[in-house]
Amino acid sequence: MDFTAEKSADIVSASFDAAPDPRAREVLQALTRHLHAFVREVRPSMAEWEKAIDYLTRTGWTCTGTRQEFILLSDVLGVTMLVETLESEHLTTGATPATVLGPFHMVTSPQRELGDTIDLVGGGTPCVIEGRITDTAGNPLPASTVDVWQADDKGFYDVQQPATQPEGNGRGLFTSDDEGRFWFRTVLPCAYPLPVDGPVGELLAAGGRHPFRPAHVHFIVEAEGHHSVTTHAFVADSAYIDSDTVFAVKRDLVIDFATVDDPAEAARHGVTAPFRYARFDVVLEPVDEEL
Amino acid sequence: MDFTAEKSADIVSASFDAAPDPRAREVLQALTRHLHAFVREVRPSMAEWEKAIDYLTRTGWTCTGTRQEFILLSDVLGVTMLVETLESEHLTTGATPATVLGPFHMVTSPQRELGDTIDLVGGGTPCVIEGRITDTAGNPLPASTVDVWQADDKGFYDVQQPATQPEGNGRGLFTSDDEGRFWFRTVLPCAYPLPVDGPVGELLAAGGRHPFRPAHVHFIVEAEGHHSVTTHAFVADSAYIDSDTVFAVKRDLVIDFATVDDPAEAARHGVTAPFRYARFDVVLEPVDEEL
Repeated sequence: MDFTAEKSADIVSASFDAAPDPRAREVLQALTRHLHAFVREVRPSMAEWEKAIDYLTRTGWTCTGTRQEFILLSDVLGVTMLVETLESEHLTTGATPATVLGPFHMVTSPQRELGDTIDLVGGGTPCVIEGRITDTAGNPLPASTVDVWQADDKGFYDVQQPATQPEGNGRGLFTSDDEGRFWFRTVLPCAYPLPVDGPVGELLAAGGRHPFRPAHVHFIVEAEGHHSVTTHAFVADSAYIDSDTVFAVKRDLVIDFATVDDPAEAARHGVTAPFRYARFDVVLEPVDEEL
Repeated sequence: MDFTAEKSADIVSASFDAAPDPRAREVLQALTRHLHAFVREVRPSMAEWEKAIDYLTRTGWTCTGTRQEFILLSDVLGVTMLVETLESEHLTTGATPATVLGPFHMVTSPQRELGDTIDLVGGGTPCVIEGRITDTAGNPLPASTVDVWQADDKGFYDVQQPATQPEGNGRGLFTSDDEGRFWFRTVLPCAYPLPVDGPVGELLAAGGRHPFRPAHVHFIVEAEGHHSVTTHAFVADSAYIDSDTVFAVKRDLVIDFATVDDPAEAARHGVTAPFRYARFDVVLEPVDEEL
């Protein structure tokens, strides 16, 4: 009954002792301990606490069917990336690392043939991406599905510009060939900012941070009997490559998108010179190797 | 660039190094460290993380002009009480402890004369509350303002039942007399549950907790030159006195609401026997004693 700052975490934690589900109990009690430790460290005034309540409320109010401000908040606080990283920690070294899914995998990518272009608009820098899907022992994985999606050369996804981009622009669902290979044509993607007109924009401004993500192409690669991976190929010479505002860059995912001037090479890939060429190999871990 | 679970808190914390305001930087960096420590401890799956995002979103959506679900969430997690406790820690021992304001101090209490009743409906157990406002040295504080509000004998505040309770029922703004004394009549308040039809109700159910608050009368006492106090007088024999769902009970605030059968005593206070009698003295700390 004697609530004190010293005992508050213990008192509130004990109130969850009778939680019916052990996992719910574990999470609620850990939440209580860490939340109270945070409050005891920063000692918010009641006025600051009211600002925090208002901030969370407005973040909820900013969420709609097509915008998820709490995911964005989790992203810029590095929490999404931490959860993703912890969930793939059981994979042995050698598998392609995962990174964030992001908010734009909301529509099904159209099935395309190897070599097809996913750029239905044109106008940017042509780009060719090739790669090979293998297991951690180096064996090719034929008939893997390679789901790709990306922003265009101005930094916008198709779903953000339904009036000017055709549906499925920048998206493709490919199947690897008998040797586990895939290849497709696209346009070089552009770095882009997160939406800053809501509470997350306020937080970035208060934190002295920019809202940009470096240029990247999203991948989800799946092969039967293997752990699938949700990841990005980052454009190595993109702006913001060292300061992705959602912390999703990993060294192994930074890929050289080389400039190629040779017209013969361009013709071989079905593009015009100069173009960018990237090789992105993906390594999946067999499920039965799981710890 | 190499984001790992071990380094995540440092990496994200460093991203706030350029925050323009030092307090914002301190809070954002502490938030980052505690949030990442929580996530690393519980290791949520992506599916659990999605449930957490959904929970926060629905909590925001439940907030309206008249309902504040994030305050309720802060309350049941003991955070509101912790902030309140930390903010009054500078007060020396002897001053009446503070407790939560609660969500029902939304209207101005009507000015009343000492001895008036704040029960405009009748029907419950009559109740008399008296007390004295003094400073920490025991000197009376005349002309203190004593703002009181409470639920009725069914557990509802006037603002919750505009159709059946007159405006200002259960509320009064009193001024202490020359000896710092106040006294008024009312009805014995009842224990009541927080609203459980929203996300906070889900959390309490998942935590194996009831949603009740023990019976109490709210007070805000102010006197010139002194720290004002926002507090409760809790009814000692109320249900849930040992398990207030918002953790607001403090030993010094648990008051004996004695049953009095003597008709002469009842007549002296302007009520009918049997009635409840409570004495609640309030001690305020002078502002110039502040540390």
